[in-house]
Amino acid sequence: MLNVRNDFPILTKRHNGHQLVYLDNAATTQKPRQVIQAVVDFLENHNGNPHRGAHILSVEASEAYDQAREAVRRFINARSGEEVIFVRNATEGMNLIARSYGETHLQKGDKIIIPISEHHANLVTWQRVCRATGAELVYMYLDETGHFTEDDLAKIDTSAKIVAFAGVSNVLGMKVPAEKIIERAHAVGAVVVYDGAQAVPHMKVDVQALDCDFMVFSGHKMLGSAGTGVVYGKKELLNDMEPFLLGGDMIEYVQEQTTTFNVLPFKFEAGTENVEGAVALHAAIEYLERLGWEAIEEHEHALVVRALEGMKKIPHIRIIGSTDPEEKTGVIAFMIDGVHPHDAATILDSYGIAIRSGHHCAQPFGAHIGAEASNRISFYIYNTIEEVEYFLETLPLVRRQMGYKD
Amino acid sequence: MLNVRNDFPILTKRHNGHQLVYLDNAATTQKPRQVIQAVVDFLENHNGNPHRGAHILSVEASEAYDQAREAVRRFINARSGEEVIFVRNATEGMNLIARSYGETHLQKGDKIIIPISEHHANLVTWQRVCRATGAELVYMYLDETGHFTEDDLAKIDTSAKIVAFAGVSNVLGMKVPAEKIIERAHAVGAVVVYDGAQAVPHMKVDVQALDCDFMVFSGHKMLGSAGTGVVYGKKELLNDMEPFLLGGDMIEYVQEQTTTFNVLPFKFEAGTENVEGAVALHAAIEYLERLGWEAIEEHEHALVVRALEGMKKIPHIRIIGSTDPEEKTGVIAFMIDGVHPHDAATILDSYGIAIRSGHHCAQPFGAHIGAEASNRISFYIYNTIEEVEYFLETLPLVRRQMGYKD
Repeated sequence: MLNVRNDFPILTKRHNGHQLVYLDNAATTQKPRQVIQAVVDFLENHNGNPHRGAHILSVEASEAYDQAREAVRRFINARSGEEVIFVRNATEGMNLIARSYGETHLQKGDKIIIPISEHHANLVTWQRVCRATGAELVYMYLDETGHFTEDDLAKIDTSAKIVAFAGVSNVLGMKVPAEKIIERAHAVGAVVVYDGAQAVPHMKVDVQALDCDFMVFSGHKMLGSAGTGVVYGKKELLNDMEPFLLGGDMIEYVQEQTTTFNVLPFKFEAGTENVEGAVALHAAIEYLERLGWEAIEEHEHALVVRALEGMKKIPHIRIIGSTDPEEKTGVIAFMIDGVHPHDAATILDSYGIAIRSGHHCAQPFGAHIGAEASNRISFYIYNTIEEVEYFLETLPLVRRQMGYKD
Repeated sequence: MLNVRNDFPILTKRHNGHQLVYLDNAATTQKPRQVIQAVVDFLENHNGNPHRGAHILSVEASEAYDQAREAVRRFINARSGEEVIFVRNATEGMNLIARSYGETHLQKGDKIIIPISEHHANLVTWQRVCRATGAELVYMYLDETGHFTEDDLAKIDTSAKIVAFAGVSNVLGMKVPAEKIIERAHAVGAVVVYDGAQAVPHMKVDVQALDCDFMVFSGHKMLGSAGTGVVYGKKELLNDMEPFLLGGDMIEYVQEQTTTFNVLPFKFEAGTENVEGAVALHAAIEYLERLGWEAIEEHEHALVVRALEGMKKIPHIRIIGSTDPEEKTGVIAFMIDGVHPHDAATILDSYGIAIRSGHHCAQPFGAHIGAEASNRISFYIYNTIEEVEYFLETLPLVRRQMGYKD
């Protein structure tokens, strides 16, 4: 198991007389000293506005920003830094793709195919593309345990122009058969958008091996800062797209009535770049790379194995999607019979356990499975088996505290 | 004069054997310990994903975020926090207004009126609105010293639907007659967009007193973090607008094919909020408020008076726009006869002086005045008269180093 808790100052926090047990990592992760210190060092020694000046601080900020982009390129194995666009979060990334690719490349009769389990960022964005273009949004409904069916895959036919899905669902916590979906999508000429928000922080995502056309992820879900995210796109697609945000640094020549745009990746990065956020993401990537994917996946898998084993033995707990730890990443959503998820989260909070409750930004999925809201625990590299045990001991108290006898 | 340098760790930096003299504050400002420490404290003790959880860290993050919004509201005197939208920077703010208001409210025959001196963020954005709607982009050309003329103001006629301008131009450094323009715009029924990027950090901007309809500014130009900015909008306008970014937190109900949206301000804040950025902006606002506008304006004015006085005496220096310190804020753009601005910036950098060179994201203005590129110095609260003296002593060396005899 990994032993990294000392790197995370917030993990010593106590709440309501208990040691904090943070199990809401799918929402946002905590930051190690190494990331915080990288930002402080940048602000105290190198802060400037990059790409715009001949002076030392602008040069140093440019270097820091370019190095962060190269770290991201290497991290996801993009062919070139031109294919790595810094955005504010995965959500903005999805909007960029939807508006700059979707709205300009689709038309009536075309279809966008997504699983019913998608996050609103990968769903409401496509609703707008459909409104704007006349395309149709088609759902893959999955089976009762969250698996893609043959019927689902058959929906990816020649009218499909975009197939978009999360590499790991933030409710089901299951890895999707990405290669299979992508192969089928490409066979019918569709473009694939891979939402990496819950995948990239937890496993090696190699965009060339996957062969996805676009990918997005957020820095704050992988030890980095809020306000940072990345869009990966294949160069030939990005080159063929309208810019998303307009402003400084993304232009080539501006005349009174017309403008030509900068080359990639700058064409998609308008205004002053969030360099300190890029520095944080760079430090986060180096931190994860030092641990190594094997150790990270092994650690999270051990937590999931123990959590699922324990939860299955507790009466009145219903896990959403597969309960097979081999299919599950560190995200487990569940219902407690007779207890509203908000009450469950509040009771667990009183024991120092931070879990998520709500619709997890996936209302159509909640409606589909008849669970408008649910509870969710999610792990990261600093969670321990002891925390899982404490959670498993405490979980049965929720129903008792609500007045149930068992 | 203010005496705050000890609060800014980066100002002790040395470069090329010289003490760093940072005169590029219109590009980005440096951060005081108080802002850096506020972010570190948040990350080490309170970091969570706001508005989405019942647990302690989500609650604390929500409180921090809401308090930051209230600080911004008070700072610009908005009527309500509903009118304060957090965005990533002023540029994104202009894009939000252009797409969500401009593209849906204008049509052929309508005009958008802007000064020729505008930043690309307040110019290229309107070009796209014009392309999308058939509206016309009309320029106010200003006189030779950067003043609005009667002819300029006469362009604001009943076909004007949007009048957009920077409260302080990032090239001219002159305060515009905002009240006069706004009064005229409102008299003909136009909506006013006030670009506060160079104004809000340097003077009291009261949106109710100004009566602008929209306003944008960036946190990083006023001691805050990169990746933070604000859109102010009158509630009745914001309520009547399409959302800009779609995703989590900005929705009310999502069904498979349709979505209803959240109330203000959340309708415009999709995805995980940049809480640490909001915390930094909050700390920056408190820092500026502790100093007080009177002291800040007096300090910057003293620097401008001395700089202009000295620069006017140096041969071959041509200042862009007014040279009257009473009209000028702490932004002075200038040309050196026979020296390309990039060379000037590089030579000054070798003496430890950080100035900007280039088109300052205002190419149409450069073309209009026949100065595609220029040099620019810009001050903030930590600059000193001694730094101005050193700049004035060093400036004549630029031409000499380029081989000129005087």
